[in-house]
Formats: sequence, C-alpha cells, structure tokens
Amino acid sequence: MRLINCPDENAVAECAAAMLAGVMLSQPNRCNLAITAGRTPALTYELLAPRVAHSDAFDHVQYYNFDEIPSADPAFEGITLRDLRRLYLTPAGIPEDRIHHLIVADAATHDATLAAAGGLDAMLLGIGADGHYCGNLPNTTGFHDQTTVVPVVGEMVARIQPHFAAAADLPASYVTMGPRSVMAARQLMLIATGTAKATAIAKLVHGPVTPEWPATLLATHPNLTVIADAAAAKGV
Amino acid sequence: MRLINCPDENAVAECAAAMLAGVMLSQPNRCNLAITAGRTPALTYELLAPRVAHSDAFDHVQYYNFDEIPSADPAFEGITLRDLRRLYLTPAGIPEDRIHHLIVADAATHDATLAAAGGLDAMLLGIGADGHYCGNLPNTTGFHDQTTVVPVVGEMVARIQPHFAAAADLPASYVTMGPRSVMAARQLMLIATGTAKATAIAKLVHGPVTPEWPATLLATHPNLTVIADAAAAKGV
Amino acid sequence: MRLINCPDENAVAECAAAMLAGVMLSQPNRCNLAITAGRTPALTYELLAPRVAHSDAFDHVQYYNFDEIPSADPAFEGITLRDLRRLYLTPAGIPEDRIHHLIVADAATHDATLAAAGGLDAMLLGIGADGHYCGNLPNTTGFHDQTTVVPVVGEMVARIQPHFAAAADLPASYVTMGPRSVMAARQLMLIATGTAKATAIAKLVHGPVTPEWPATLLATHPNLTVIADAAAAKGV
Amino acid sequence: MRLINCPDENAVAECAAAMLAGVMLSQPNRCNLAITAGRTPALTYELLAPRVAHSDAFDHVQYYNFDEIPSADPAFEGITLRDLRRLYLTPAGIPEDRIHHLIVADAATHDATLAAAGGLDAMLLGIGADGHYCGNLPNTTGFHDQTTVVPVVGEMVARIQPHFAAAADLPASYVTMGPRSVMAARQLMLIATGTAKATAIAKLVHGPVTPEWPATLLATHPNLTVIADAAAAKGV
Repeated sequence: MRLINCPDENAVAECAAAMLAGVMLSQPNRCNLAITAGRTPALTYELLAPRVAHSDAFDHVQYYNFDEIPSADPAFEGITLRDLRRLYLTPAGIPEDRIHHLIVADAATHDATLAAAGGLDAMLLGIGADGHYCGNLPNTTGFHDQTTVVPVVGEMVARIQPHFAAAADLPASYVTMGPRSVMAARQLMLIATGTAKATAIAKLVHGPVTPEWPATLLATHPNLTVIADAAAAKGV
Repeated sequence: MRLINCPDENAVAECAAAMLAGVMLSQPNRCNLAITAGRTPALTYELLAPRVAHSDAFDHVQYYNFDEIPSADPAFEGITLRDLRRLYLTPAGIPEDRIHHLIVADAATHDATLAAAGGLDAMLLGIGADGHYCGNLPNTTGFHDQTTVVPVVGEMVARIQPHFAAAADLPASYVTMGPRSVMAARQLMLIATGTAKATAIAKLVHGPVTPEWPATLLATHPNLTVIADAAAAKGV
Repeated sequence: MRLINCPDENAVAECAAAMLAGVMLSQPNRCNLAITAGRTPALTYELLAPRVAHSDAFDHVQYYNFDEIPSADPAFEGITLRDLRRLYLTPAGIPEDRIHHLIVADAATHDATLAAAGGLDAMLLGIGADGHYCGNLPNTTGFHDQTTVVPVVGEMVARIQPHFAAAADLPASYVTMGPRSVMAARQLMLIATGTAKATAIAKLVHGPVTPEWPATLLATHPNLTVIADAAAAKGV
Repeated sequence: MRLINCPDENAVAECAAAMLAGVMLSQPNRCNLAITAGRTPALTYELLAPRVAHSDAFDHVQYYNFDEIPSADPAFEGITLRDLRRLYLTPAGIPEDRIHHLIVADAATHDATLAAAGGLDAMLLGIGADGHYCGNLPNTTGFHDQTTVVPVVGEMVARIQPHFAAAADLPASYVTMGPRSVMAARQLMLIATGTAKATAIAKLVHGPVTPEWPATLLATHPNLTVIADAAAAKGV
C-alpha cells in the first residue's frame, strides 16, 4: 500500500486525475476500469472529463460501476449510474457501448463476465466514514464474497432511504462487488478527503483487518494507492 | 483464486513444477521467487531441480525464504534454509549470490529490501492442517503485519521444539513474512496434499477470512493458484 | 531475448509444454493465446494436450491462430485450423466457443478485435528455415504490417501448392498476422528444432534486423523466449 | 502503438506529465525509469518536478539516462546528466542514490545491470527530426545493438561539436542504449513537438521499419505511446 499525502482536496483531485489518466493510457489494448460515484471524486472527474472528452486516446477504456442502488420504480436506472453519468460519463462523452452497468439481476454472473473480459485493470474507490467501500458495510462481510445482492432491511433502510424522495421508491435490495471481487482488480486507487474519513483511513493504514472496518482488507492488496488530503490522513 | 484439482500428489508436483518453470521463464529480467520448505514440495523440487541445474535459462532467478527458525546455536543457519538447500537449492545448483536469506536480524528491513529489488514476482506456499502459512499461525494475526519476529513462548515452544534434537537449541524467536508482505507478491501458488489439509483448503476456498484460519486471507489475492490433490480438496 | 538451449527435440517439447502451462495458469482471468501449427510443435502438443484435457484449470484460455491458408473450396476451413485441431485442439478437448478462427475475410478487423479482447497474452511461434514466422516471408515485409491478406502469386504459388492435393484448390490469397500485430503480444515463445533452422536462429539471435530474415525483428521484443535444440542452436 | 494528438506543446507537456506520474505511482515497489534530456521535455519536467519534489510518493523511482556525451575533460560529468539535472533532477529534488548514470565505461555491462535491477519499467523518449532516438542515428543501426559505445568520427564530429564551447573538449566517443535495449523496456513514451518532427513521426506511425529512420522500430513495441502536438503529427 502506498499513501500519498496531499495538502487539500484540490491536490487529491489533481493527483487522482493524473494517476487515472496514466493508468488508462498505459493499457495498450482494452482497459477495464471501475469508478466510484459519491461526492469525493467530483473534483477528480471535473479535471479528467474534459481531457477524456477531447481526445480519442481514451477510446479503449471500458467503464464499470461496482455497486448499484436501484429504485422500486423499474424505469429508474439506479442511483450509482445516474450519479456517474452526471459526474463523469456524460461530460467525458462516453458512449453507451463502453458503459457496462452492473445491476441486481446480473450479480451472480458479474465476476465471470469480468473475468471473460480480462478482469478489471483498475478501480477508483472511495471510503465511508464507517470504513465501508462499494456496498460492503461494517459487520456484513467475511471478506470472501464476490459480487452479491444485499437485501435492504433493518438498519439498511435508514441508510438507503435518503437517496429517494419517496418512501415508495425504496428498493428491496442493492448489488455490490464483494471484497473478493474488488481485490481481484489488478490495481486499486482509493481517494479520501475531509476529517470525517480520518479514522477509517487510519484503520486502513495501520490495521488490523476487521469486519468492523471493511476497507482494512484493501491494505493487503499488492497494488493499492491511497490518495488522501491532510484532514483525512491526520490519524495516520 | 483458481483451484487446480489433481488426482494425486505426483500430479500436484508435475503441475507445480511446470507452473514454476513457466513463471520463472516468463520473467525477462530478474525474477524474485520465494519458495517453501516442508514436506509437501519435496516431489515438486525433485522434478524442478534437475531441469534448473542443467540449464542457464534460470540464472536470472533470485531465491528468497519467507520464514526462518534459527537455533540458539549461532553457527546453525536455520531450519528453513537447511531444508531448502537439501530439497532444492543444492540439487538445483543455485549459487550463494542468488540465495537471499531472511533472518531474524533483518526482519525490520526485509519488506523495504524486497521492494527495492522490485518486489516478489511469485511465491510458492504450503499450508498447515491448522490453516497456517509461512509462520503465520492461527489467532496470531490481524492480517496487517509485514515481516515480523515472533517470540517462541507459550504453545509455540511445543510447536518449535520438535525441530531440534536438544532442548538447549530452542531459539528465543523466529521470523516470518507477515500477511501483508505475502499478499504484496504479484503471484501466489499454494500446494496442498493429503487429507490432513482438507479442512484448511475448504476454509480457504469458501471463506470467511478469519484469524482462526490464517490462509483464508490468501483467497483475496488477485492471482492465487491452489494446486491440491483429491485428498486435500475433498472438502471443497 | 532469452535463448533456452535444449539437448534435443524432446527436451524442447518438455520445456515448451511446461512454459505454456505456466503462462496459461498464471493468467487469473481470460488468457488469449495464439499457437502455431506445423511439424515443430507436435511433440509439445502431445505433452500439453492431455494435461489440458483432464483439467478445468485451463478453461479460461482462448485460442487464436495467427495465419490461415484457405482453399479454393469454400467448404474447407483452412490448412492451419485443420492442423491445429489434429495436433492440439481436438485432443485437448477445446470447445468451439474458445477457438477464434482468423480467416481472410476478417483480416482488416483482426487487430482491433484482439485489442478489444485485451490483446494476446502470449504466442507460441515456429520459425522457417528461411527465417519466416507466421505468414511473414522473406523480403515481403517492412515490419510495419498488421494482420494482412497476402495474394498467392509468383513464387508463392510454389510454396502453397504442396499443401493441396489438387491444383484447383489453390487459394487466391492467405491471411497472416503481420510483424506489428505479432510484436503487440505481451509474450512471445519460439521453438526451433533441427539443423535446417540453425541459420535462421543464428540470424535472429545476432541480428541485424532485416527483411531477408523476417524473424530477426522478434529479437527486439521485450519478452521473447527462444527454445531450441542443439541442432537448431548450433550457429549461435 | 497509440498516438495521442494534442493541440499544442502545452497539451503535450500536460499529457506526458500526467502519464509519467501515473506510471510511476502504479509501480508498488521499485520503479526504473529512463528519461530524455533535450528541449522537448522541458515543459513536461516543469509540470512534473514540483509535484515530485513535494511528495514522498515518488521515492521509489530510480532514474536512468539512456545516452551520454562525455567531454575530453574528465571532470565534466556529461552533457545528458548535466541537462537532466537542470531540467528535472535538481528541481525535483532527486537524491544521488536514485540517479543511475550510464557512462561510456559501463556500456558493456549496462544491459545486465538493468536486468539485475528488474529492467526498465518505462522510458520517456524524444525523437530527432532525422528520426534518431537516444544516440541511435540514421544508418548506423541494424536494430540489434544493445547499449554500445559510438566513436565520434566523420559526420559525428559536426553533430557533437555544438555541445562544446571548445574544440578540445570533443570526446572520442559517446554511449547510448541501443535499439534492442530500448525495446526491452516494458513501456515506451515518446513526445514530439513542432513541424520539424513531422516527417519523423509520420515515418514512425506508417513505417516501414528502416535504418534510415531509426525510430520506426519503436512502432513495433507492444506498449508505445506517442504524444505529439498538431505540428508534429501533421503528416500522419
């Protein structure tokens, strides 16, 4: 694991955008990339999207999401892809045939599909203040799951509800790549900004690996880069 | 993780020897390889050693051990290297300048030394009936340790003692690459034969990742191959 | 370039089969492999095919041919695939959906198809006594061609004719991966046996790179292994 | 080969700096990087040097030069290293123990030294208007040379002389990585700006591979990225 300390969130975005560009351009053939939605990568995508939009040098990049929260309304394509479109895919001009949408119905075949496509070259991940990554929440994993469907019950209801204006839209379940399928990517990049992430980053860096802090597993990947601002890294 | 099912221990040895040869020959420059001692790889090394001894095509391979049990007698170089010499290094004709001996005194610098040498390209691992690998024993790891020194106290005394004819030779501590430094290798191969290993292999394959069965972590590595005979794989 | 000197053709086959197995098993996801037909690899395939046939550990391997000589008879699938089936694909039990048949009609799109599939992980090549590889014949290449169609005219007629019982079957053209598309593979293995190949191997090893000896280009690949018996390597 | 078309030299520098940063940060252990001196990379280094100087995330990068023109004055360390220091190494704060200086006296052992260090992960190259790269000049290569010493005689005198204020400083020879040792790097990046480079870039992209235009060989590398501004790419 390599920790890159950045002074602030702008420096995190510059570093992550440069690293993503370098990773994409270093793949001479197909590049399979899974990227995160959420608030943290917004600045990174602001820097990266115009560069990608104005060049055909990135046309070999295939985009994957790694989790999806659908809606009870079948017409809605999902929280993650909606956000990825707004933050990156639309401004970067990515055509539909290079967007590979992981949905609940495809969970059981997703890892085999990825393997048949050559596997993920890289993932850009975020981290929750509670140490979750993708949809792998605290105390829900033995770290051996591949892509899986998670029922929205119990405390999950309160987590998911804020994504929806109407209670009726709450889905019965969501899908996420599991720890084993995330770890199968050849390269992991994780970005973190703000004081709220400080404990989770400190846990990741120093261990132990524990289901209470799911992202602690990622520190055992042979090629993980954590890009954090001073606030997020203050506990390291 | 890929599981290769072999009918018997001879087939495991043939598969492992072929895979090791292929991995070594596929590295055009330096190849950094850590290999296991113990009983399981004896047949593998019987097949591999003469091939390596009679060809200069393997002269780029650098050998590392990943754990070492020294003796209270400072003149003794260690259980692991002694066994590796007998099983492989001597019959394969490996010169001293390509044998990189991990010893207790170098534990703190070992991971940085490996990184400066380019990191491990591959490791050949065994597994204990209790799920240990290298010197990472059940309930002793949070999976975040790098190379570390383990004191020989408590139940460890009974584990280590059989290696020594005289009680006076019992060392105060041994050294092992930790979970995080093992996972940093680009490729892992693990061989297992015999019914005694069946539970450990089943735990590794099916999870969860738990300190009670240390090798369960290895299933999250992006490039792990498990080569097992029918007896060792019967619980999968 | 690494040259592996083997005493005889049996040792070449053992080395090549081990190396191929290792390369295939080292790919955790899809493995894209192009393999040669011809007489030289027959012994290699004899060793490899049963191993592959009796294990599901090789089910991720996708097979490609790198040249094809069709017949004027459209019902005939081609010299190369016919020979590959007999020598390897059939005894190894490879199903049709993992056989990717390069044919004349697909030449223009072949390199893009390969790139979209992740590119070739490895190629097993032979070499002609005249230094040709795949269908890249002496004095016909500027080393910049990708997959291309070659008309069967002039001296080519005499080269191709012996493949066919009837003169009427002679095709108008054949297809071959060109120098640039061969060099795009991540790893190249080339096997050579017999005195007839000695000059071509010596030219490859010592250079210069010249269109008179097309395989001389391959020595500039960052990961080429040449496996030769004593007769083929006698000029090195 | 991938060609990245940039509108101007600033865009080339931004792209090259991002790609270099990404390549360096993607190596989890040691990163062996050879970089070019000359005028073209000045803007790239202006962007990259402060980023590297202000972060310890690049401390694993080992720097190599790929050619050197010494002086008859033995106290002078060479044109290339002098320029690399001024353009990049000094502003980036690279310590001496990570600067690996190729000099004439070490030519014969350089490729073996590189291989023992794991080989080059990447090279940043320029290109001459005459198609030369490193010190590989037109009509002087059969593409098979590794690192070599080139005598300064004949027309070479006129090429080298402008580097020196006094005629007495003209060296008897210079050193350069040869075509085969350059092609051995795992990744090549080549930057080109300005109309003067247009013919050389067109020759590289379209072939054929010919000693008259040495860089044409590079188009056969499995992972070459050419980053060119509109002026340099106008002939493509």
